[in-house]
Order: sequence, then structure tokens, then C-alpha cells
Amino acid sequence: MWTPHRYKFCPSCGAAVDYRVPADDNRERAVCSACEAIHYENPINVVGTLPFWEQGDQVQVLLCRRAIEPRHGFWTLPAGFLELGETSAQGAQRETDEEAGAQIELLPLYCLMNVVPVGQIHLYYRARLLSTEFKPGPETLEARLFHEHELPWDELAFRTVRETLRRFFEDRRLGRPYALHCADIS
Amino acid sequence: MWTPHRYKFCPSCGAAVDYRVPADDNRERAVCSACEAIHYENPINVVGTLPFWEQGDQVQVLLCRRAIEPRHGFWTLPAGFLELGETSAQGAQRETDEEAGAQIELLPLYCLMNVVPVGQIHLYYRARLLSTEFKPGPETLEARLFHEHELPWDELAFRTVRETLRRFFEDRRLGRPYALHCADIS
Ligand SMILES: [Zn+2]
Ligand SMILES: [Zn+2]
Repeated sequence: MWTPHRYKFCPSCGAAVDYRVPADDNRERAVCSACEAIHYENPINVVGTLPFWEQGDQVQVLLCRRAIEPRHGFWTLPAGFLELGETSAQGAQRETDEEAGAQIELLPLYCLMNVVPVGQIHLYYRARLLSTEFKPGPETLEARLFHEHELPWDELAFRTVRETLRRFFEDRRLGRPYALHCADIS
Repeated sequence: MWTPHRYKFCPSCGAAVDYRVPADDNRERAVCSACEAIHYENPINVVGTLPFWEQGDQVQVLLCRRAIEPRHGFWTLPAGFLELGETSAQGAQRETDEEAGAQIELLPLYCLMNVVPVGQIHLYYRARLLSTEFKPGPETLEARLFHEHELPWDELAFRTVRETLRRFFEDRRLGRPYALHCADIS
């Protein structure tokens, strides 16, 4: 979650920081009053998948019911914060494993959504399920497949989940190839 | 630049931090010894454009020679860190204005590249130049157009710049539509 002005003390030397515009800059930054280090705050990335199970012309998608805050009890696509040391694709695969215990074949990036109010970019990859057995981890109450008409639209955890699902079923209905969707969530 | 273990002191309360694996986690994090706040470190986003000027079947691309470190004196596409409060498209447009003073029409996202060793994701948008007058800012020594055969391949600032340019000219040569390219730079 984007918490502006989250620095009170310098993580390098422990002295107090001031928020001011450094020389050669045009934005307020956390500047250390002692060592003068500048500490930047930038948007972070959430990575996940849209796992689906296809049989003939029927498709079901995998959702996880959250066992953690925020949005405890609401349904989400498997997703979480991208970590240092991994690519966005690896992170999406890791989250799918951690939250759903689902076996997938990762497909191309499907949605890139800027969520400016919380300082996040959400990246969702399509993913073909290789099995319908799931082993949800401790962050998930329940993982199950949904047909489009069963989707819990009013109990989805995040706007980007809804927007990603909406586009997926629309692309299918129109017989469109699955190209990247970019969107801004305000 | 990704500097792992960059926290020595807690930005919330100023006490010393330890790096350890918190309960319910599986990675080392900076954990405050006093207030127990956990401070996460995540990859950050660099956003920029590939600005081009087309006349008939001729195309030129805009590069900027860097007036700042790292890679002072080398050529780059206009790009920089995504800031809180803006979308990736707005950030790419802002950097193009700040570094090149170029008037552009932003086109769809063209490259998404994970640069795991430095903890970054680079996002480049194609951009149609609306004029060939540039007003480079203080971070740029010079901004100019290059035909493909003039490109300073050995004096490019970053791998992602080279990979983006290479794909652009390849897509053109093959007459391919400009779909998103995803790549990992190691
Ligand atoms: Zn300091
Ligand atoms: Zn603390």
C-alpha cells in the first residue's frame, strides 16, 4: 500500500529526515538531515495469473478466497508483490503456487494495470491449468473453479481482478486473440 | 539501483533493524528491533519511450546522450524511474519531455523487460514524434535523430535500450505488427 511520507528516520544512518525538494529535482523527497542521503518512494508491482481450465468450448477460471487482510473472505486471482531476484513471470508463477497450489503453464502477459491511488502496477499473465487439483496455502481459505455465470462479481477482492476477468470473457465471447490489455484504475 | 540490505535503521522509529525471516514469511526482511515494523524491498519501474520520426518508408529514432551518471556520455532512449502519482504512460511521457523536450503522440506499450540483477522492470512505449525540434533538459548533453545505419550500438547506455531498438528495426524489416515484447535481461 502506498503510504506517502513513510520515512521519519534515515534507513542509512538513523537521523531524522526532512521532506524537501533536493537540488536538481522537482519533487519532495525524504532527505536525511545528517548524511544527506535521499530516499525515494516509487510504485511497486503486483504479479499474478488468470488460471483457466478449458474443456471443449467450456472454460472455468480459478479464484482464491483470501484468508488474509486486506479483503479477507473475498475472491481474488492468485497474485502478490513482486520480489527482488525474480522476473515478473517467475513471481506470477510463485504466487499461483503459494496461494492456490495450482499446476500451470504460464502464457503471455495479459493485463497491465496502473493503480495510481495505491502506487501499484498489477501484471496478470494468462495461465493454462494442467490439473484441477489445488493445494491452497495459508493465505487462502478456498481455491475453486468458476464458470462465467457463477463468478462472484460482488465478492471480488480488487478492481484489477474484476477488470482482468471481464476482459478475458469479453475477448472469448468476441473470438478476439488475447493481446495485452493496458488500463488505469482510479 | 538494487542495493540489497539497504536498511540499517528503521524509517519509522529510527531503531536498528535486523535482517531475518518474519513469522508467516519465507524471505529475509528488514525487521525493526524496537517497533517490529517490517520494511520490504521490491523491484522498481523504469519507464520511457522509443520516439520515432517517419517519412515515407524512412524512419529515424530519437536518442539522448546522458549528461549524468551512470553511463555519462552514452546514448539512451528517454527513460527514468516511475514516480508515485502517475501511470506508467504518464511517466514515460514526462521523461520524454524532461530529457529530450520532444513533442510526441504516445503509442502502445512496446517492451517490458525484467532486469533482475538490478531489481528493475523497464517499460518502453512507442511514440510518434510530432516535430523534430528538441529541447534537451539538464540530464541530456544532446538529443538527435538516428537512421538505423547510424545507430551508436557500442555507445548505448543500457541493455534494455539496445534490445528495444533491435526489436523495433526487426519488426519493421519483417513487416510485423508492433505487438508487446517481453524479455528478461540477465
Ligand atoms: Zn542519514
Ligand atoms: Zn522501528
